[in-house]
Amino acid sequence: MFQYAETDPMMSHDDAREQEATLRVELLQEQYRRLQAADQTLLIVLAGIDGAGKGSTINLLNTWLDPRHIHTLAYGDLTHQEAMRPAMWRYWRDLPRKGQTGVVFGSWYGTLLTEAARKKPDPAKMAMYARVINRFEAMLAAEGVQVVKLWFHLSRQAQKERANRMLKDPETAWRVSHADLKVRKKFDRLRNAGELTISQTHRSHAPWIVIPSANEDMRTLCAAQAILSALKRGTARRVQADEPLPATLLPLPARPPKTPALRKSSYDDELLHWQSRLAHAVRDKSFSHKSLVLAFEGLDAAGKGGSIRRVTAALDVRNFDIHPISAPSAYEASRPYLWRFWRKLPAHGKIAIFDRSWYGRVLVERVERLTPPPAVRRAYDEINDFELQLAANGTLLLKFWLDVSKEEQLRRFREREASPFKTFKITPDDWRNRAKWKAYQAARHDMLTRTSTEHAPWHTVQSDDKRAARVHIVKTIALALEAMRKPRFREPEVGDQVNVLS
Amino acid sequence: MFQYAETDPMMSHDDAREQEATLRVELLQEQYRRLQAADQTLLIVLAGIDGAGKGSTINLLNTWLDPRHIHTLAYGDLTHQEAMRPAMWRYWRDLPRKGQTGVVFGSWYGTLLTEAARKKPDPAKMAMYARVINRFEAMLAAEGVQVVKLWFHLSRQAQKERANRMLKDPETAWRVSHADLKVRKKFDRLRNAGELTISQTHRSHAPWIVIPSANEDMRTLCAAQAILSALKRGTARRVQADEPLPATLLPLPARPPKTPALRKSSYDDELLHWQSRLAHAVRDKSFSHKSLVLAFEGLDAAGKGGSIRRVTAALDVRNFDIHPISAPSAYEASRPYLWRFWRKLPAHGKIAIFDRSWYGRVLVERVERLTPPPAVRRAYDEINDFELQLAANGTLLLKFWLDVSKEEQLRRFREREASPFKTFKITPDDWRNRAKWKAYQAARHDMLTRTSTEHAPWHTVQSDDKRAARVHIVKTIALALEAMRKPRFREPEVGDQVNVLS
Repeated sequence: MFQYAETDPMMSHDDAREQEATLRVELLQEQYRRLQAADQTLLIVLAGIDGAGKGSTINLLNTWLDPRHIHTLAYGDLTHQEAMRPAMWRYWRDLPRKGQTGVVFGSWYGTLLTEAARKKPDPAKMAMYARVINRFEAMLAAEGVQVVKLWFHLSRQAQKERANRMLKDPETAWRVSHADLKVRKKFDRLRNAGELTISQTHRSHAPWIVIPSANEDMRTLCAAQAILSALKRGTARRVQADEPLPATLLPLPARPPKTPALRKSSYDDELLHWQSRLAHAVRDKSFSHKSLVLAFEGLDAAGKGGSIRRVTAALDVRNFDIHPISAPSAYEASRPYLWRFWRKLPAHGKIAIFDRSWYGRVLVERVERLTPPPAVRRAYDEINDFELQLAANGTLLLKFWLDVSKEEQLRRFREREASPFKTFKITPDDWRNRAKWKAYQAARHDMLTRTSTEHAPWHTVQSDDKRAARVHIVKTIALALEAMRKPRFREPEVGDQVNVLS
Repeated sequence: MFQYAETDPMMSHDDAREQEATLRVELLQEQYRRLQAADQTLLIVLAGIDGAGKGSTINLLNTWLDPRHIHTLAYGDLTHQEAMRPAMWRYWRDLPRKGQTGVVFGSWYGTLLTEAARKKPDPAKMAMYARVINRFEAMLAAEGVQVVKLWFHLSRQAQKERANRMLKDPETAWRVSHADLKVRKKFDRLRNAGELTISQTHRSHAPWIVIPSANEDMRTLCAAQAILSALKRGTARRVQADEPLPATLLPLPARPPKTPALRKSSYDDELLHWQSRLAHAVRDKSFSHKSLVLAFEGLDAAGKGGSIRRVTAALDVRNFDIHPISAPSAYEASRPYLWRFWRKLPAHGKIAIFDRSWYGRVLVERVERLTPPPAVRRAYDEINDFELQLAANGTLLLKFWLDVSKEEQLRRFREREASPFKTFKITPDDWRNRAKWKAYQAARHDMLTRTSTEHAPWHTVQSDDKRAARVHIVKTIALALEAMRKPRFREPEVGDQVNVLS
């Protein structure tokens, strides 16, 4: 795939000037067209032989386009904040909004390229890294984030000459970095790494384009042309995603029997007992290296809010955040749907509580047809991928589905209407949702069967008896945290690999 | 001020239950009223004697209010990202949007309280810390962020008893932190620190309220009452701000004479020379401990964009961000106007380039009357405060005002209309702004006379000759960075103090 680039093709400066004139006008027009449409993001991922001129090319193209709407996303060593989250967190965090362009240096290809550049790359690891990347890019593409990847390439001889030329001239010597000089010694390995990487991650919805880089005009025009055609083409109509990451689905738990009502006195004792256990567990030293994510789902008046308050009563307000999830704001809606959840992932020693969650995608958005059915169908696997990355990072995720019976829900609605404390909790929406009871039960069923995985099982809770439900939830969290303190016999092998990706 | 609280007033549990019922309804109503109005933020700052029950009180009040719209903002030791920015950065970054409530632990009072708790507090330092705080809170108040500060207090005896009681019961022992135990030994010093702090930072627009904390019911109800009346009262109508931080104003620079046009050949040479100097300076090791902020202002077609491109050509795209500033989005407009600029402050080794800036407040917002005149008038000092904090943090700020003559502007407008590269740059707005030439010159004059300070002088650039202007700008930045590498004889004393505040 590098044959043409390694012939180090040239072009005359006059030809280049002529083509440049046309290209610049078209680039600007396309950039502005997409800015106005604001329905797609473009991510340009840069990779290739070091010293091939990635930086100078992008600097120059910045002056051809309107640089104010291009965001450079450059990643180096992990910061402390980044190291506490799943590897993909920093890339999610920085996703530009629709209409904008991002240029990515030091992208999610780092780990794959490093592995591929080893003397003997591990094929299993490489396959796993590539799969994580391919799943990520397919999801971006399906969500309106177009990814195009440029590999800057030149022959070994040309690379050497370019560095020597620049080093000689004091005006340009500063452009040659230390890394450039070192890399000249391992040209072959990087070349092979590029070949392996490209062959495993080239997809029609996220293509690699090789940029011949020996000649400056050639390099600039090829890169400009690649960007222009990406801008014109836009995101793929159909995205053929790779197989999802390996997730073991659990059988649907039987609908829990109605538990006998818990008497007030036993409730108080039991709740205090489990709150105390929970309080100790989150204050244990081991928790300072872990994070906890709690997701609460359930129909209106199933008791999510009350349960959350019983949990938080045992926590220190300084260590948790509650995220009530409703329809995304315009700011959030201009990115892929999982973006707003990625952003809220907690640091170590912290707890994020979601009052409704990313499962809205397959619940309310499905029932209300806010999202097209194909997007809902692919969401199950996307969510499993997401949760696998949490697990791999040592984040404990506990998902609670609160089951309330239709009669009990009605009773609670009536009670809310009557109580001055609770009247704010009941809206016409609640009654409308109740009318769609059957559709929600179907959505619940599919969700539980398709996203209850070994790495992130669902906990279903019969919540007609609020007290029993609350004790059960606090107890489940406390026990899960306590279990994490014990040595584990089986490390999540796949997960480890997933998370190395950075 | 602590006399009443130190009598450790009690109330009967029955009285408390009765008052609680009314308070809860009112609290919820007020919270919802303000959520819907979405025109003010409430920040509740917590301080006081450790072990007085701040945490448990807020935990409880969280269950009285709707906790999903309350954000706990808890600050501890500086993170790496925080340590690279001015001390106030982390508080600005986390400001909740209008309609929401923030509860602040470990707030901007940390440094002042620490100084005040010394055996011999330094009065000059204390005064400076208090002034920074008072200026900050006054600005928040004027911008719709209401600040109310609760000081939890109890007698020495009650503090001791409370800790012992909790320690004895295994169910509550976890609530007593290590810090609580230590603090019992230095009750008097903390008490005095509280007195000093409150007396210097109590303002009618940002009041301190002492909460008697020996009795749980009393403490909870007093805190709830304080929050309720803050919610009802809303932000101050008139904010009496303290004197601005000390900033030495520089005389208005004479309007620079038209420089003789720079010939193309000398331009190319000079530009490359200064770009090379600039390139070296930002790659110098010393820059990895500094940040650079560039602000470009000037009328339409004054040459801001072209100048920025000549600067960035010498930089590595991985190390800078360009922020084009236009009208704030809804997301930005729901916070004080400086918020969006604070958020964009660069880390060490990084450069933030503002194409238009916070000076929009006193330029376009003044001329177009987008902001009421009193808010514009106070902005000059607020901006000087902001820039002083940058200087104190070792951030180099360079502000360029590009002066273009009326004739030259017209020529450039015509040229833009004719060029396929540039036609996107000219809009009806540009012609409308041109019609307001005089108003903009008046705004320019006031801005230059009121915000050209010793710590952040304006650089005015005659830009009718684009080449000369560009060379001048690149040269100014290169020289300023080079000057920073030399040892400084006079450290900004005030600045140092400003920045210690965290």
